[in-house]
Amino acid sequence: MKNIMSLLLLATAMEMAAVSITSPNGAFLLNVDVNAEGTPVYSLDYKGKPVIKSSRLGIVTKETDFTKGFHIAGTDTATVDRSWEPVWGEYSTVRDHFRELTVDLKAEHPERALTVRFRLFDDGLGFRYEMPVQNGSNYLTVTDEITEFNYTDNHKLYAIPGDYDTDEYLWSETTFSGLEDALKNYHRHSEAQRAEGLTVQTPLLIKTTDGVYINAHEAALDGYPAMLLDVDPATYSMKSHLVPDRLGVSAYLQMPFNTPWRTLIASDDARDILSSQLVLNLNEPCKIEDTSWIKPMKFMGVWWEMFTGNQKTWAYSDDHLAKPGVTDYSKLTPNGRHPANTENVKRYIDFAAANGIDGVLVEGWNEGWEDWASYRKNRQFLFDKPYPDFDLPALRDYAKEKGVKLIMHHETAANAADYELQLDRAFQFMKDNNYDAVKTGYVGAIIPRSEHHTSQWMVDHARHVIERAADYQIMVDSHEAPRPTGLCRTYPNWLAQESARGGEFESMGGNPPSHTCILPFTRLKGGPMDYTPGLFETRMSYYNEGKDSQAGTTLARQLALYMTMPSPMQMACDLPENYERFPDAFQFIKDVPVDWSDSRYLEAEPNRYITVARRDKHSDDWYVGAITDENARVAEIDLSFLPDGKYEAKIYEDAPDAHWKDNPQAYRIRTVKVKPGQKLRQPLAPGGGAAIQIRKL
Amino acid sequence: MKNIMSLLLLATAMEMAAVSITSPNGAFLLNVDVNAEGTPVYSLDYKGKPVIKSSRLGIVTKETDFTKGFHIAGTDTATVDRSWEPVWGEYSTVRDHFRELTVDLKAEHPERALTVRFRLFDDGLGFRYEMPVQNGSNYLTVTDEITEFNYTDNHKLYAIPGDYDTDEYLWSETTFSGLEDALKNYHRHSEAQRAEGLTVQTPLLIKTTDGVYINAHEAALDGYPAMLLDVDPATYSMKSHLVPDRLGVSAYLQMPFNTPWRTLIASDDARDILSSQLVLNLNEPCKIEDTSWIKPMKFMGVWWEMFTGNQKTWAYSDDHLAKPGVTDYSKLTPNGRHPANTENVKRYIDFAAANGIDGVLVEGWNEGWEDWASYRKNRQFLFDKPYPDFDLPALRDYAKEKGVKLIMHHETAANAADYELQLDRAFQFMKDNNYDAVKTGYVGAIIPRSEHHTSQWMVDHARHVIERAADYQIMVDSHEAPRPTGLCRTYPNWLAQESARGGEFESMGGNPPSHTCILPFTRLKGGPMDYTPGLFETRMSYYNEGKDSQAGTTLARQLALYMTMPSPMQMACDLPENYERFPDAFQFIKDVPVDWSDSRYLEAEPNRYITVARRDKHSDDWYVGAITDENARVAEIDLSFLPDGKYEAKIYEDAPDAHWKDNPQAYRIRTVKVKPGQKLRQPLAPGGGAAIQIRKL
Repeated sequence: MKNIMSLLLLATAMEMAAVSITSPNGAFLLNVDVNAEGTPVYSLDYKGKPVIKSSRLGIVTKETDFTKGFHIAGTDTATVDRSWEPVWGEYSTVRDHFRELTVDLKAEHPERALTVRFRLFDDGLGFRYEMPVQNGSNYLTVTDEITEFNYTDNHKLYAIPGDYDTDEYLWSETTFSGLEDALKNYHRHSEAQRAEGLTVQTPLLIKTTDGVYINAHEAALDGYPAMLLDVDPATYSMKSHLVPDRLGVSAYLQMPFNTPWRTLIASDDARDILSSQLVLNLNEPCKIEDTSWIKPMKFMGVWWEMFTGNQKTWAYSDDHLAKPGVTDYSKLTPNGRHPANTENVKRYIDFAAANGIDGVLVEGWNEGWEDWASYRKNRQFLFDKPYPDFDLPALRDYAKEKGVKLIMHHETAANAADYELQLDRAFQFMKDNNYDAVKTGYVGAIIPRSEHHTSQWMVDHARHVIERAADYQIMVDSHEAPRPTGLCRTYPNWLAQESARGGEFESMGGNPPSHTCILPFTRLKGGPMDYTPGLFETRMSYYNEGKDSQAGTTLARQLALYMTMPSPMQMACDLPENYERFPDAFQFIKDVPVDWSDSRYLEAEPNRYITVARRDKHSDDWYVGAITDENARVAEIDLSFLPDGKYEAKIYEDAPDAHWKDNPQAYRIRTVKVKPGQKLRQPLAPGGGAAIQIRKL
Repeated sequence: MKNIMSLLLLATAMEMAAVSITSPNGAFLLNVDVNAEGTPVYSLDYKGKPVIKSSRLGIVTKETDFTKGFHIAGTDTATVDRSWEPVWGEYSTVRDHFRELTVDLKAEHPERALTVRFRLFDDGLGFRYEMPVQNGSNYLTVTDEITEFNYTDNHKLYAIPGDYDTDEYLWSETTFSGLEDALKNYHRHSEAQRAEGLTVQTPLLIKTTDGVYINAHEAALDGYPAMLLDVDPATYSMKSHLVPDRLGVSAYLQMPFNTPWRTLIASDDARDILSSQLVLNLNEPCKIEDTSWIKPMKFMGVWWEMFTGNQKTWAYSDDHLAKPGVTDYSKLTPNGRHPANTENVKRYIDFAAANGIDGVLVEGWNEGWEDWASYRKNRQFLFDKPYPDFDLPALRDYAKEKGVKLIMHHETAANAADYELQLDRAFQFMKDNNYDAVKTGYVGAIIPRSEHHTSQWMVDHARHVIERAADYQIMVDSHEAPRPTGLCRTYPNWLAQESARGGEFESMGGNPPSHTCILPFTRLKGGPMDYTPGLFETRMSYYNEGKDSQAGTTLARQLALYMTMPSPMQMACDLPENYERFPDAFQFIKDVPVDWSDSRYLEAEPNRYITVARRDKHSDDWYVGAITDENARVAEIDLSFLPDGKYEAKIYEDAPDAHWKDNPQAYRIRTVKVKPGQKLRQPLAPGGGAAIQIRKL
């Protein structure tokens, strides 16, 4: 093909015609061309109608302009159909089936070359820039990327504000024309920098006026900053907005370099957005040779009791002048409100051991929590200095004896530089003490001070941490890191990330029931989220007299989240005593797997409802989760996915009078016989949900 | 004293009188007061005449102003006379004798407190700010320090331009009024940022119109940026100019915090500037408990043959697309011009072993030298990946068998962040391979990109590297790091630093003979310099046909530098074959110690000449070094420092017709009998010198 194209080029010189490909199933048609200015452009049709109108492609660098003056110097196409087996996930096998179009662009005066590689799947499009060694320079300094996504109408948008440092926002359901007003409702996080202009983050969800759902995101973000989207509501267009460092540069690139993939998952069936593996497919295969040590897990945490306030603290002492590595902590006066103490941690270990929970996370175990002056000092936490009341050797031995894994916590206060300095020591300390998973945190403004949470340097940092962790056979659950783009395929020790407004916000203003009905359409397309489900006591006044809010959920819905928010590192977030109050409901958390061999999205509408069935990776048991927004609903659960046989379904459901606000703990558990093909009509309370365990008889 | 002062305060309220102290020998008088605006001021007299007129003190922070509104709330004085024994240095014992004045300043609206601690020595003044916990804030963000040094006349200045990134400049001998013109002669280093305005660096040397020599510098720079000096030639005044980060902040401070000491060494005898231990005295005592592993050394290097050009390279391959950690270097085509290869390194080891040289430094041994794109990529060098032609295990064993230590090279390309990430691995790799000293390098613009070479973060970085090195019992010779301020007392594994224009510049334009006549008055007051003496072949065309310059030195002078530029990590910089051409002169390098029990400065005038005698720490042998500028000179060497006895002096001197430019290798070696009290008249050629070994008979 390449040779033929070369001949064609000789014949037609600068006049090479536009090229197009269709997806394997014919649903998508991609056109690529170069416009009168020599700017590469593409457009995308779905089922015969345009979803992306002619949109420009290109990159702006300090050295050279990669947006104009190009002609198509050659193209190549290929069809690929292959499959791969994730270490963990929603499916035991993932099919990677696409048609590929590679467009080589050339320009003169000065000489430039740029390749755009498109992969058109049955469920959408991915494309990336491939920058070969340029004449005279191996290095480029990127200041902008002009990639456009020109939509066709005043579509519905499900969006959060563009921000260089945080994605912990509630989602707005709005339209192009309503976006500006919608974004006015967000207050700025004190230490985060919102992007200027009308800017949103990815993953972004769009529902077209024709009823087509589109998830816009990126895949394999590595060596490049995260992409936000500038929105022009007048033309319904969006343009890539690369997160810059604080000195105004977005990326320092060494040629040859491939950008992340820009992705559009699209379908007129909302369930296809949820089941799509497009983002994972565009990531590189697993780079870790021996993955036997990577083990999905459930865990509890000495965390919620601090997080909900009520005087309990991560800090051991109230001496806010204490300096880790300088102060002798054994001489400080303990504040007596420090849950990360030996006795309390043992209580969690006991509970986990008694209930088959694999791990116990302990926050506030190490020196450095006496104040929270992140950014204002160059060093804050030490990752190998336990507090005096946290008897690490004793707890290590106790946990081992009980068959429970302690999970380390590395809060960096966003001082990534300090973390890198300590990284080997921190991980060695973990291995020396039998830890094999860590929750990392980056709360605050980033150090190095030139950086943002999602600028190129921090994207690199995140990968370094994951790679270094893999060297030590450590699994990672990262909080406040760049939102995931499927890198967990390449580094499956990256079990989970936060990177969105998680369950913790139930203690900071609350998450409406709709919140977990949009996250699977948006944030989760990049990878699993450590959302921390399992909240049984939803009245915040229970934890803290000063708070009168309550979580936007019924108790039964919390069980459903284990299926609708799948993660190989899944928390049971509540306190042991709250689980002891509801042992029959807690049985579901004990039983539910965290790794799946198959998944079937049965019903879905963004921000409204999701019903999903998943098969345990290690048995033939199926688990169904169904959730709704603040409106009651009857989920239609079509059991045709079950193979022939007789089954028993144990249904954890909202009681008839349940309501997230007034009666969240009203649930029922019933067991019924079910069979393949049967349709269950499952009522869900306002803000409610249902969790069903289906076992073959 | 404090109590009496408190009573006084009650009586006089805001009207506490000025306070003054004198140095133990009475030569200095220090006055401290608060002016009408409530700004603390000080002045300094020497032998009855002012050297510093009333000069303001204070710090500007984003949160509060520490420059105005103060009154003296209390003072305290003390006299201290003690001594300490350095691990290595110019003296086996150092006397630390001073009168101390502590001035507690208070201000209201808002409430502020600031202490200034002055130490007045017989050879000068040191003072620092001590910032206690402030009402309401433990943290301050420093944007300026207004410390003034108001001189009295149009004094002579020996200065280099203020720069945030480099101090590798030739020195200007000028005056306040001539400074502006003098600084115009400097071209800007491409990747360094010169300070705006009329700014110079410290250590700065001043010679007053009265003939008083003053070295202005700082001591114990830690947790704070380096200090430059803004110069106002109209008023003969200087003001501290703190190096900012690239976002405009100079320091993030956690209270309580003590700034570095601002130092003024002063005397009407130039020799007192050279012998002063004031900067070391103001540093904290040694923090390393076991110092038995810290061993002064002489070393050679596989370095000069690359540095002088002539096609030889640090890089193994010319494939400038090679990426460390990605590329398989064993498959690259070697360029055949790579001296850091096993065979060549063995040749250096053989030579070192045969001549009692302790160590061999090898540069260009590790992956990453294929291009020099520092700053443009986030990762460059790997510190545990030897090149394919550098057989590290074989060389490790060979060096051990020969009793020679290999010295590691860590060039970071100024990517301090990357170095921190690799630090533990790099040091562990060194210990695993029997290395116990490292030369570090920071050529280029700093990453983190928010930083300069001498901004606070990099000052902290330097200390972290030294501390981490001490953990692994590794000695450090740092290049392109913040210039020294005596921290080698506290961390004696910090054997040497470059931090000035070194001998390497003989291959990049040359150093005039006067250069090494000013460095001991300026740069060396902070600590030893890795100047790399021992250059026997001074014609650059010898190394590289394309170069016609030559070093500003005779051969004999190079021997004298071992005394006039003392360092516990002292290089013999030339190629083995050049030493083999002059074996009788090389004998001096083989003999000369690198650690001393006593030092006597016999003659000195900045930029003109220095004559110094030093006693070997491990014998009763004395060594004299004498150097002159481009003018011939007769050094008067008064041997009264010798204890009673008969001595033999082996004199390595310029031949009568020697001249740095026309006849640099004309030297003579003669042995004469000498006795205490005798005065030797030792001729020195233009750009020449003499080295004398004196042994008791």
